[in-house]
Amino acid sequence: MSFTDLMPEVRKALAAGDHAALERLLEEAHSADLAEILAQENDPFGLALLARLPIEKRADVFSYLPADKQLDLAERLDDDELARLFTEMDPDDSADVFNLFEPVRRERILRRMARREREEMRRLSSYEEGTAGAIMTTDYVAVPEELNISQALDRVRQTAPDAETIYQIFILDRELRLTGTLSLRQLILADPLAPLKSLMITDVIKVEADTEQEEVAKLISRYDLLAVPVVNQQEMLVGIVTYDDAMDVVERETTDDFHKSGSVGSLDRGIGRTSLVTLYRKRVFWLVLLVFGNLFSGAGIAHFEETIAAQVALVFFLPLLIGSGGNAGSQAATLMVRGLGTGEINIRDWTRLLGRELLVAGTLGLTMAIAISPISMVRGGAGVAEAVAISMVVIVIAGSLLGMSLPFLLDRLGVDPATASAPLVATLCDACGVLIYFSIATLIIGTGS
Amino acid sequence: MSFTDLMPEVRKALAAGDHAALERLLEEAHSADLAEILAQENDPFGLALLARLPIEKRADVFSYLPADKQLDLAERLDDDELARLFTEMDPDDSADVFNLFEPVRRERILRRMARREREEMRRLSSYEEGTAGAIMTTDYVAVPEELNISQALDRVRQTAPDAETIYQIFILDRELRLTGTLSLRQLILADPLAPLKSLMITDVIKVEADTEQEEVAKLISRYDLLAVPVVNQQEMLVGIVTYDDAMDVVERETTDDFHKSGSVGSLDRGIGRTSLVTLYRKRVFWLVLLVFGNLFSGAGIAHFEETIAAQVALVFFLPLLIGSGGNAGSQAATLMVRGLGTGEINIRDWTRLLGRELLVAGTLGLTMAIAISPISMVRGGAGVAEAVAISMVVIVIAGSLLGMSLPFLLDRLGVDPATASAPLVATLCDACGVLIYFSIATLIIGTGS
Repeated sequence: MSFTDLMPEVRKALAAGDHAALERLLEEAHSADLAEILAQENDPFGLALLARLPIEKRADVFSYLPADKQLDLAERLDDDELARLFTEMDPDDSADVFNLFEPVRRERILRRMARREREEMRRLSSYEEGTAGAIMTTDYVAVPEELNISQALDRVRQTAPDAETIYQIFILDRELRLTGTLSLRQLILADPLAPLKSLMITDVIKVEADTEQEEVAKLISRYDLLAVPVVNQQEMLVGIVTYDDAMDVVERETTDDFHKSGSVGSLDRGIGRTSLVTLYRKRVFWLVLLVFGNLFSGAGIAHFEETIAAQVALVFFLPLLIGSGGNAGSQAATLMVRGLGTGEINIRDWTRLLGRELLVAGTLGLTMAIAISPISMVRGGAGVAEAVAISMVVIVIAGSLLGMSLPFLLDRLGVDPATASAPLVATLCDACGVLIYFSIATLIIGTGS
Repeated sequence: MSFTDLMPEVRKALAAGDHAALERLLEEAHSADLAEILAQENDPFGLALLARLPIEKRADVFSYLPADKQLDLAERLDDDELARLFTEMDPDDSADVFNLFEPVRRERILRRMARREREEMRRLSSYEEGTAGAIMTTDYVAVPEELNISQALDRVRQTAPDAETIYQIFILDRELRLTGTLSLRQLILADPLAPLKSLMITDVIKVEADTEQEEVAKLISRYDLLAVPVVNQQEMLVGIVTYDDAMDVVERETTDDFHKSGSVGSLDRGIGRTSLVTLYRKRVFWLVLLVFGNLFSGAGIAHFEETIAAQVALVFFLPLLIGSGGNAGSQAATLMVRGLGTGEINIRDWTRLLGRELLVAGTLGLTMAIAISPISMVRGGAGVAEAVAISMVVIVIAGSLLGMSLPFLLDRLGVDPATASAPLVATLCDACGVLIYFSIATLIIGTGS
C-alpha cells in the first residue's frame, strides 16, 4: 500500500476503534511510511501507534524518524523502554539518537543495556559528527581468512539475521586486520572448497573512522559500492558504511549547499518543520551583513552625486547595470560551487577556468551591451549610451570573475565554497558596478562642471 | 591503488614503453579510475589504452565514461568493434550510448549484433529520456513462483554471472506478471524446501516504464531498496532500476536544480568540460531576459525623478533597500525550491508556509530597519530615516512573499520550481522595491513641490 493510501486508512481504523484493521495496517505498512505518519502527527497519537508495534518494527520505525521527533518521543519513554529500543535498533542509528541526550540520561540508559551493546554504543557514540565513524555500523559480516568458500558461506548464514548487509563480506587475518573482501555473488559462484585467500580481492577500497562523511559517500558513489569498510590506524576493521546511509549523507550535504547558495544557514531539519525562531536566526545573519555590504554601493552613489546631478538619466540605467553584474556573477559562482561540490573541478583548475570565464563573460557582456543600446540611445543620447555600453561589458566581466573566484578563495581559506551565495556575490557585484558605471560615466560625460 | 597514484604510474609505464608494468596497472585499476584517466586524456592515447583492455573491462570502462567522451571514442571505432562493445556492456548503459548515434549508424550496428541483444537494444532505446525505462536494465534475476527456495537458489547461481544484481529476486507467474519478491538474504536463510509462494513478499514496491526517474530515485532512497522492478501495463516485469543508477540520477537532477538556482540552463556535462559556446548559450538567455526585467526598475526610478530631485540623499539608500528585498526573497525561494525538490513540502503546504513566512519576514524586516536607522538618521535626517525604515519592513516582507510564492506558482504552471532562481527573484524584488521605496518616500517627504 502506498503512503498516500495508508494515512487515511490508519485514521479511519483509529476513529472507528477497529483494532483488527489497525493491527493489519501496521503490520503491512513499510516502516518509512509509518515514520512519516508519526512525524506528522502530534505526540499522544504517535506514542500510541508506536506502542502497538512489535519491538523489531518499533525500532525500525524509530530509526526512520527525523532527529527532532526521535528526541520528542524519547522524552516520553522511560529508560527501560529506551534501552530496549536501542538494543533492537541498528547500532549506527541508535548511537545517533543517543548522542542527542544529556550525559546524565545517557549513563542511565547505558546501565540498562547488556554489556556487548553498551560497549558498542559507547564506542560508536564517541566518533565526531560528520565522520565515517559516526555513520558506520558494527553489524557487518567478517570472516577469518583461513576459511574456504563453503565455511565462509556458513558464517554468512549465521550472521545474516543481524547484519546490516550480507552482500559484502570482509576478510580478516588473525590480528583482525582487514586483508580482503568478496561479494556474496562471488562467494556463491565460487568452488565451495577453494580457500578464501585464493579468491579474495586484496586491493580493498576502505576509509578511516575520521574520514569525512562526504568523502565516504563519494567513494561509494564513484565505485558503485554496497558498503565501504572502516578501519582504525592498525588496519583493523571497526565498522562499515552502507550505500543507503551514504545516500542520506549526500542528500543532507546537498540541502546544506543549496541553502548556503541562497545565503541561509544550515538547518537540521526541513523548512516545513523548522521553528520560526530558528528560521529567523538562520536568515538574519546574512541579511544584516549584506545590508552593510550594500552601504558601500550607497556610498559609491553619494560619491558621484555631481555626475548624477549633471545627467539624471544615468540613474535610470543603474539597476540594470548593477543587476546584470550580480546576475552574471551569481551564474559563475553557482557553476563553480556545484563543480567543487561534486568534485568535478578542484582548486588547481582555477587558472584554466579563469581564462574560459573571461571569454564567456566578455561575449555575454557584449551581447547585453548591444541588447540595451537602442533603449539607452533613445533615453539618454549618445553620451549616456556609450557610457552604458562600455560599463555593461566591464561590469559583466568583473562580476563574472568575482563570482567564479570567490568560491575558490573561500575554499583556500578553509571556508565552504557554497558560502559564495548568490546574494553575497550580487551584493559585492553591486558595489563594484556602482563604482565602474559612474567612473566611466564621469570620464565620458563629465560632471557637468 | 588510489586514483591519484594510478595516473602518474600509467604515464610512466607508457613513457618507458614498459608493457608488462602497463598491463599489470590496467588489470589492477578500478574501471571508474581508468575511465577518469581516459576522460582527461586526448584521443589517440585513450583509444590505445582502451584497446589494451580485455573486452569485459573495456566495456566496463566505457560505461563509466561521460557521454561526450563515449561519443568521441565511438566515432573512432568501427561498427564491428562497437557491436562487440555494446553486447558486452550492461544493456541500460549501451542503450544510452546507442541513443546518441545517428539513425543510419544505429541500424548498421544493430545488424552486427546477435538477435537477442539486438531486440533488447531496440526495446531499451525506445523509452523516453528521463523515464524509468531509460535507466532500467534487463539483466535481472526472475524466477517462476512454482519453485521452492532451493530451486530458486540454483536459478540465481545460473543467472548470477550476467545479472546486474542478484541480491533482489523477482518472482513471476506463468503470464510473466510480477507477483512477489525476495532478497537473497531471505533466500539463503529460508528452509530450502519451502515453496517460494509461501515466503515471498507480495506487496512489491514497483514502478512503470514511463515513471519519472526522479520519482524512482525517491522510492529507492525512501525505502532503502537495492533495486526497484519496472512493470508494463499488464503487470509484466520488463526491467529493474538499481540503486547505483538512482544515485547517479539524484546527482544529475541536483546539479540541474543547482544551476537553475543560479539561473544557468541545464548542462549535459560538468562545467570543466562544457564548451564555451554552450556555456554562453546557457547563460545568455536569462541574463538578457533579466536586463529587460531591470528596465522596470529603471522606469520606476524615472517615474519618481521629482522625489529624487527633492531629496538626493534617498538614492544613497536605494541599493541597500532593493538589495535587502532581493536577498530576503532569494532566501525564501531557496528554502522552498529545495523543500519541493526533496519532497519535504508540496504545493498544498503553500498557505501554511505563507503565514510562517509572513511572521519571519516581518521580524527580519524590523531587525534590519533598526540596524540601518542610525545611519539613515545621520545621513538623511528624520524624514528620510522614517521613509527608509518603513520601506525596509515593507520591502523585506514583499520580497520574501514573492520569493516563497514564485516556486509554488511555477510548479502549478508545470514549470520546474527551481526556475525561481536567486537572480530572477532579485530582479523582480528590485522592481517592487523601487516602487515601494519611492512611493513611501513621496508620501512622507513629498516631491518638494
